[in-house]
Amino acid sequence: MKLMRVKSPENVLKIINEQFTALDSETIPLEEAGGRFLAEAIYSPENVPDFNRTTVDGYAVYARDTFGAGESMPAMLEYSGEVLMGEAAPQIEPGQCCLVHTGGMLPTGADAVIMIEDTEPAGTMVQSFRQVAPGENVIHRGEDLESGSLVLDRGHKLRAPEIGMLASLGLTDLTVCRKPLIGLFSSGDELVDYHTKNLEPGRIRDSNAPALAYLAEQKGARVKYGGILPDLFDTFLDKSRSMLEEVDLLIFTGGSSVGSRDHTARTMQELGRPGLLVEGVSIQPGKPTLLANCGGKPVLGLPGHPVSALNIFALFGGAILNRLNGKEKKNYNPSIKAELSRNIPSRAGRRDYVRIRLEQTGETIKAIPVFGRSGMLRTLAEADGLVTIPTDKEGLSAGELVEVIPWE
Amino acid sequence: MKLMRVKSPENVLKIINEQFTALDSETIPLEEAGGRFLAEAIYSPENVPDFNRTTVDGYAVYARDTFGAGESMPAMLEYSGEVLMGEAAPQIEPGQCCLVHTGGMLPTGADAVIMIEDTEPAGTMVQSFRQVAPGENVIHRGEDLESGSLVLDRGHKLRAPEIGMLASLGLTDLTVCRKPLIGLFSSGDELVDYHTKNLEPGRIRDSNAPALAYLAEQKGARVKYGGILPDLFDTFLDKSRSMLEEVDLLIFTGGSSVGSRDHTARTMQELGRPGLLVEGVSIQPGKPTLLANCGGKPVLGLPGHPVSALNIFALFGGAILNRLNGKEKKNYNPSIKAELSRNIPSRAGRRDYVRIRLEQTGETIKAIPVFGRSGMLRTLAEADGLVTIPTDKEGLSAGELVEVIPWE
Repeated sequence: MKLMRVKSPENVLKIINEQFTALDSETIPLEEAGGRFLAEAIYSPENVPDFNRTTVDGYAVYARDTFGAGESMPAMLEYSGEVLMGEAAPQIEPGQCCLVHTGGMLPTGADAVIMIEDTEPAGTMVQSFRQVAPGENVIHRGEDLESGSLVLDRGHKLRAPEIGMLASLGLTDLTVCRKPLIGLFSSGDELVDYHTKNLEPGRIRDSNAPALAYLAEQKGARVKYGGILPDLFDTFLDKSRSMLEEVDLLIFTGGSSVGSRDHTARTMQELGRPGLLVEGVSIQPGKPTLLANCGGKPVLGLPGHPVSALNIFALFGGAILNRLNGKEKKNYNPSIKAELSRNIPSRAGRRDYVRIRLEQTGETIKAIPVFGRSGMLRTLAEADGLVTIPTDKEGLSAGELVEVIPWE
Repeated sequence: MKLMRVKSPENVLKIINEQFTALDSETIPLEEAGGRFLAEAIYSPENVPDFNRTTVDGYAVYARDTFGAGESMPAMLEYSGEVLMGEAAPQIEPGQCCLVHTGGMLPTGADAVIMIEDTEPAGTMVQSFRQVAPGENVIHRGEDLESGSLVLDRGHKLRAPEIGMLASLGLTDLTVCRKPLIGLFSSGDELVDYHTKNLEPGRIRDSNAPALAYLAEQKGARVKYGGILPDLFDTFLDKSRSMLEEVDLLIFTGGSSVGSRDHTARTMQELGRPGLLVEGVSIQPGKPTLLANCGGKPVLGLPGHPVSALNIFALFGGAILNRLNGKEKKNYNPSIKAELSRNIPSRAGRRDYVRIRLEQTGETIKAIPVFGRSGMLRTLAEADGLVTIPTDKEGLSAGELVEVIPWE
């Protein structure tokens, strides 16, 4: 077997960032835009709020009418009515006050609101036992967003808060990056469709395809499944070539045999320039990973072992999808802090991913390594997440606080 | 205004766990099961693997034929052929060896595999420069999963690893908990449909509905939107009653006015027994939260302010959905560790949620508080996540390491 020119994971991420760029854009309704990335910057078409609003229940006043008021010497204000929610507010004159409800519009003239708790009605008058400063308990017109100001930049991901913000501006059609389409092939002569009920000897079901399809959907992509490729180079190349024309990212999930690994690498060389960029990554599990740029489109070859395939797709597939989606903000990876239950040995010079089961007793969350070969499926479902051992470390010690990256 | 009997967030979560249980089940195809929860335990219908498999490329042998072999005294084995991937393996006799590829079936008789790197061909013979123990480099039949053994328990969430594991067993139809259907109402006379292009004075667009609908979908629910309820109690109650019949969880996102808050509370009392359970939570922002059990169905009243509504839905709505989905495993909330950029004051006796923007310089991730009133939308989209200040703490100090819960 040819010795692989193994690259560090950092190096592979750098290659991904350099080689691939955002797809073209499309305009879609706000209701479908969650999880998508803006293809153009958005500027506010109006002031938010579009009127001076109160942030409390109370009385709108001319602030100066309350100056000097206190517990023992209340200011006396003439009650001039109530601003109904959703209605334009009337004007008030100096010396007057007007009942307003949280979120309601401030009457013209009024520049502050006294909280209702600080007042008491007295016939047609209202007593104020506190003084308020101009602007107190008021959000001014345009204070949240000024008309014409930048709301969200290009490449910003639309999460629930952004959806809310765009809805508040009445922006119901959004120009976002087109959703990446992944073409997915399995390979290896031992594989059969996972719908197969009775297995013949030596066969296993292609379990990576549906697992990767779900993970890809979670990461914001659509998936077109091309089936299981046979260990015949010509068929392999032909099918790959026509799939690549249709999709934005082509993924092979390798059979574990040398034959299918070789076909994948050769295919990646022939599908387009510059071809194969990565042959092997210093990651465990997941070393036999392949990455190519074929005529501008990314092609990823995943190891056949289920644990490796999911791990590598989450890491490098996720990074490629971020590029195709035009994501501009940095990725911060959340983790669960837990106390390692035992030593984990590791070899320096590679980044290890260890499957972890979490167990909480009292305040302490224990991180318990789930051992097993990377082909073993049971260890996957038992794990709540993964812990990485950095390239320069020779293992982790029992009792150490580790950061567990959750499987979601 | 009536004084609210404010409950702690822990108390509210306890009430949710006591009051609500899992919905009924349905059977769906594996391809649609990602993110769903198993309604029944799954036992393995077969052995995985169903044959003894090699974990390396090498020669299958009788281990005892290699005993004593070493660099200077190789064992000599008769080459008897190759096991093709996906084919049943032949039998081998003592003294023979057979070429096998990673994942391939072990020949009958063979009990170990010598890695190809430790061998050298010599005419019709193969030299082995190492001895192997019985079982070395072999996964035995049933070693991953034994036929009849528990694969996944009831209430287990189907993530990508589980989808792969079930596919490997050929289990393509799964009995899962029915997906919760949420009925969503907005209320408040100041609100207008967010598709409205030109706002009249005093009006704001109902931005919570689409933001909550997206968040609900992310948390594994379907949403039926019932529109904006007017501040008229009879209409409010009638519409709520017919919606509640159709859905599994009813959510009101309140107008900020006292009127709509009162209508929500009264409606919750009248929709069914035992009625209102929570009137106010010691959380900032999000205090005016309402929770009821109306004839066994949860009804949640969210504050009208966008930040509060999303915060409370993520916390309590998420917990209710976990109950309805029959989730059995504990929730571990992942976070991003970051260094607080400045002091944040807080009042003891309530749990504060502070919006945080993250900024990485070198190795350090800074957590920068984004201040602003809870009604202000801009602060939401600027934030990468939230930091909580526990009930018993009076703020956090600059330089402190905090855990930021990401907005996803």
